[in-house]
Amino acid sequence: MASKSKILSIGGTGYIGKFIVEASVKAGHPTFVLVRESTLSAPSKSQLLDHFKNLGVNFVVGDVLNHESLVNAIKQVDVVISTVGHALLADQVKIIAAIKEAGNVKRFFPSEFGNDVDRAHGAVEPAKSAYYDVKARIRRAVEAEGIPYTYVESYCFDGYFLPNLLQPGAAAPPRDKVVILGDGNPRAVYNKEDDIATYTIKAVDDPRTLNKNLYIQPPGNIYSFNDLVSLWERKIGKTLEREYVSEEQLLKNIQEAAPPQNVILSIYHSVFMNGVQTNFKIEPSFGVEASQLYPDVKYTTVDEYLNQSV
Amino acid sequence: MASKSKILSIGGTGYIGKFIVEASVKAGHPTFVLVRESTLSAPSKSQLLDHFKNLGVNFVVGDVLNHESLVNAIKQVDVVISTVGHALLADQVKIIAAIKEAGNVKRFFPSEFGNDVDRAHGAVEPAKSAYYDVKARIRRAVEAEGIPYTYVESYCFDGYFLPNLLQPGAAAPPRDKVVILGDGNPRAVYNKEDDIATYTIKAVDDPRTLNKNLYIQPPGNIYSFNDLVSLWERKIGKTLEREYVSEEQLLKNIQEAAPPQNVILSIYHSVFMNGVQTNFKIEPSFGVEASQLYPDVKYTTVDEYLNQSV
Repeated sequence: MASKSKILSIGGTGYIGKFIVEASVKAGHPTFVLVRESTLSAPSKSQLLDHFKNLGVNFVVGDVLNHESLVNAIKQVDVVISTVGHALLADQVKIIAAIKEAGNVKRFFPSEFGNDVDRAHGAVEPAKSAYYDVKARIRRAVEAEGIPYTYVESYCFDGYFLPNLLQPGAAAPPRDKVVILGDGNPRAVYNKEDDIATYTIKAVDDPRTLNKNLYIQPPGNIYSFNDLVSLWERKIGKTLEREYVSEEQLLKNIQEAAPPQNVILSIYHSVFMNGVQTNFKIEPSFGVEASQLYPDVKYTTVDEYLNQSV
Repeated sequence: MASKSKILSIGGTGYIGKFIVEASVKAGHPTFVLVRESTLSAPSKSQLLDHFKNLGVNFVVGDVLNHESLVNAIKQVDVVISTVGHALLADQVKIIAAIKEAGNVKRFFPSEFGNDVDRAHGAVEPAKSAYYDVKARIRRAVEAEGIPYTYVESYCFDGYFLPNLLQPGAAAPPRDKVVILGDGNPRAVYNKEDDIATYTIKAVDDPRTLNKNLYIQPPGNIYSFNDLVSLWERKIGKTLEREYVSEEQLLKNIQEAAPPQNVILSIYHSVFMNGVQTNFKIEPSFGVEASQLYPDVKYTTVDEYLNQSV
């Protein structure tokens, strides 16, 4: 049996990155996290860094914006997983340049973990420029340099969408009235953060995910919004009043909203009106589905997740 | 009297950009807007572009990411005002490079229109990396190239903060209970979008704003959150229950929130807990205050703005 690849996480103290670091260690990969000098002393990160230390994570001091530090970090590993936040998405060209110079990387996961940006047809502004196009440009740069890659589509984070079923400002799912964007029929995909991490790490040394999209679409996590509401109604034994927001109204709201709300709403437009998460067939030429590749993973279903809110 | 500078707006169809374009035309500046080919045919932008056309705005087809188109656009004007969104903040190095090559720009306004990123001490993650540091790097690049600049601090957009007094998900200001971040005492600044644009355009040909921060802090727009709530209470003739969120709780919420909510909350931390909008004295060496420079501007006060919600 081949030894496990060494993994460098860039953005490992961020929202999804911390789950990936933990999954990496637990799967037996020697795991490295790029951290800025300032992060090491940030009070808000001390608990997480202590947790990483206890797990046996290796810290490498460096910065995406410091080429030398990046090359040095990358040379110590086999695989690079980026989960940098929105502000650094475009700066991933610097990671690509460092991978190129280091010359030893067997697989690069750019910061994706959302929708398939190459198949998000009909995306409106500002999401198109601010989100889809930025990630797509990084994909093209990775491919142009011939770097082996996997693009992970992990869709809606459970922790962002399910605690209040997307009702703005609510601390819990609705019990009287629910606002639904569009007609509620396009299907979206909801995945729990640690499952996303588990699938991602499984893909690291898997030749079937090489130069492919890894779509995380376990059958128990695909719901139209109408079906999601019905599932919730069954759990609480109550029927909710459903208010539907027309596309015209949502587009108007997007035009009037200030940043970042306009970006968020326009991403919702593509997910809940265009149905970009499920409106095409995954072809072997460009992608594989995670729960089919790894049927042994016991993922948390949406049904199970919602039980904690009942 | 010198003729008015020709102005190129980059990001002119965005949230704050459209106000700046309108103010530029109305002040008599020959006004150019950089637009992508795809924007010209985007249904969601057609109304705005028609409005611009009627005002006499000139469209220049191009893209921040296309160097040649950018240099060509910049060569036609004297002043460049960038209001690009978050995803393109870092890509403003490309605007800087094009300005350098064009060689004719008398003033550059990078995409700021928020807090003074050089004086936002104590900012926590992810806002520090995702917002403050990104803008600060662009400032340093502008200065390193010797490009004449003005940095506009326009603080909280009225349209984002005042319609619901920052109560998540609410469509109107609260009438029973209000949630306040911190002790409610640090003062923040709230400005109406068209006033921000008016002040910005006035600064374009003003030698007093050359290589300076332009702080938009009209006296009628500076409020602690407690005073803002009191003002609202007087308007509706009712006392609200005030719930205060401790710093410890907010930091915990930031840690647990998914993007982009974690970024938003961490910016709130700096505004409403650290008080970064008002916790230093504006020194002539680095800044000027807009309402003092332009006392003739009849700005909309917070008091007036809130009347529409009563």
